[in-house]
Amino acid sequence: MKSEFELINRIRDQVAGRIDLDLVLGIGDDAAILREQTGRETLVTVDFLVEEIDFKLEYTPPRWLGHKVLAVSLSDIAAMGGRPRYSLLTLGISKTGLNSDKFWEEVFEGYFALAGKYGLILIGGDISSTPDRLAIDSIVIGHCRQGGAIRRSRAIAGDEIFVTGRIGASAIGLKMLEMGARVNEKEAGLLQNALRAHLRPEPRVIFGSLIGELDLAHAMIDVSDGLAQDLGRICEESGVDAIIDRHLVPVADESILVTDDPERAFSFAMSSGEEFELLLTASRKSEGKLMKLAEDCHVLLTRIGEITKKSNDSATVMLRQDGQVKPMLFSGYDHFINL
Amino acid sequence: MKSEFELINRIRDQVAGRIDLDLVLGIGDDAAILREQTGRETLVTVDFLVEEIDFKLEYTPPRWLGHKVLAVSLSDIAAMGGRPRYSLLTLGISKTGLNSDKFWEEVFEGYFALAGKYGLILIGGDISSTPDRLAIDSIVIGHCRQGGAIRRSRAIAGDEIFVTGRIGASAIGLKMLEMGARVNEKEAGLLQNALRAHLRPEPRVIFGSLIGELDLAHAMIDVSDGLAQDLGRICEESGVDAIIDRHLVPVADESILVTDDPERAFSFAMSSGEEFELLLTASRKSEGKLMKLAEDCHVLLTRIGEITKKSNDSATVMLRQDGQVKPMLFSGYDHFINL
Repeated sequence: MKSEFELINRIRDQVAGRIDLDLVLGIGDDAAILREQTGRETLVTVDFLVEEIDFKLEYTPPRWLGHKVLAVSLSDIAAMGGRPRYSLLTLGISKTGLNSDKFWEEVFEGYFALAGKYGLILIGGDISSTPDRLAIDSIVIGHCRQGGAIRRSRAIAGDEIFVTGRIGASAIGLKMLEMGARVNEKEAGLLQNALRAHLRPEPRVIFGSLIGELDLAHAMIDVSDGLAQDLGRICEESGVDAIIDRHLVPVADESILVTDDPERAFSFAMSSGEEFELLLTASRKSEGKLMKLAEDCHVLLTRIGEITKKSNDSATVMLRQDGQVKPMLFSGYDHFINL
Repeated sequence: MKSEFELINRIRDQVAGRIDLDLVLGIGDDAAILREQTGRETLVTVDFLVEEIDFKLEYTPPRWLGHKVLAVSLSDIAAMGGRPRYSLLTLGISKTGLNSDKFWEEVFEGYFALAGKYGLILIGGDISSTPDRLAIDSIVIGHCRQGGAIRRSRAIAGDEIFVTGRIGASAIGLKMLEMGARVNEKEAGLLQNALRAHLRPEPRVIFGSLIGELDLAHAMIDVSDGLAQDLGRICEESGVDAIIDRHLVPVADESILVTDDPERAFSFAMSSGEEFELLLTASRKSEGKLMKLAEDCHVLLTRIGEITKKSNDSATVMLRQDGQVKPMLFSGYDHFINL
């Protein structure tokens, strides 16, 4: 990279001429300007991805890195039942190593392809160099109608629990990458699916925003730290317990890559982070509409359990299996657990 | 640091119970929720600070680091004539080194002291570890009335040019730090002033927001890359030229620390970045009101030149000295100029 300004100009070119009713001013001033509207709410989320910690360049195609950086934030807005509209992007570009022009072109290609898919406009950001490693902070701003956001804290005893997609492929993809597997876009099959699930997740943008618009869920979160742990968060914030039906959970086919023991596959799936599937609770009477919506959006939606009254002081996620109900021991991902 | 969650909980405690009419939901869900209002506009800015590149822990008191991280973004909102309302904070915490609990407590102390001064509420953020160095991304969201933001692009030939404060102390502070000078909060004098100017800048929050509210400027920017270069940006975006009167520019007294040659002091001041003073252009008839407002805000405001018609293809900043007008050769700070 020759210059910060050059990079900024290249990004400016990419978003120039975008017309949007609520965007008063995008990139190019001290701050971006967005029009507000009574009856609407702004949603803001930010996700920080750091080389060597959150991704490795060694096995991440640059286009997929650009995609994922945005995908994780889109997923947050979807999990609020909102519609993503604008993004900001902070780049910490390492002075050493892999920052060729080609690398950045591919990162932006991935980023803007996903942004374009959902009509998102990049309205700002910042660039700094870093001494060692690449770091990217992704900010997405969305909208929902007033009072329409789906929070984590509104699950009600009696709600059914649903999850989109199949669970576990992301953790398996990561494991395979660590074992030396690499992306080959010409190949198909379970291995490449798993790598793709981890490196190039598809956020449930349309389905999530429609759930919000149609008010079909009480609580929603995206699976970023593992289904069990994220469901635990809904329980904690809502003051409820949850029971998951072991046999209902849609475990990803890719689990066969690492184990033929269904119990191990299940545990692995329940603690698989970065799935970016939506986990939601809804009243029984919404099930029909939810299933219809999922079908219309070509999203697999599975009922996996129910919300129950809180049985003791701390919120508990229980597992129902072979007629027995036991507290579930779950583990998720904590960046500092190893410090 | 024992855990990401612990750190998040500590931050949550710090902002718990804050009441704000437009804040629907702060920290703790997939995204923050802000109420919108017709007739108002949202301003968004982001600033990335990286250890060893943008700051060195070796000479930065942690409290001042927390202060500065927020100050740079507040300054951006002020430069739009907006009122800062909310912030988000991304922390990349290095696995090695200086991340003691005490260090973070002091960083937050500085951050929240400045936030509290202007009634700002932290509504979100993200935390990741980094392999080597600390990295902090600061996001601030503000408001202005519809159409009320002061852009860089609206300077008009005939406008007068004003700047707040005195220019140059930040670059001198940085130079002194590099030469081995260190902060001593018990000491007073030019040296400590210069260090403070660089390490703990005071953004012009109230003055900037009132300029926007009272519609007193045509164009505004904060001095972050050097007065000459930032004025060049206004010229470029507005399609005008500018003349600076050499003898009107308020050069910081601290320049005496590095040179007794007024010419060198002036050049140094004109390219001093991270000043976070406001540079604005306004019609002649606004001068009285501007000066009165500055006085009310206890801000030094100086007229330093005028905006003129564009004389050739590229916008030019000229310098008027001893009856002569010459194009100014300015240099500013480009993070990648050395790559």
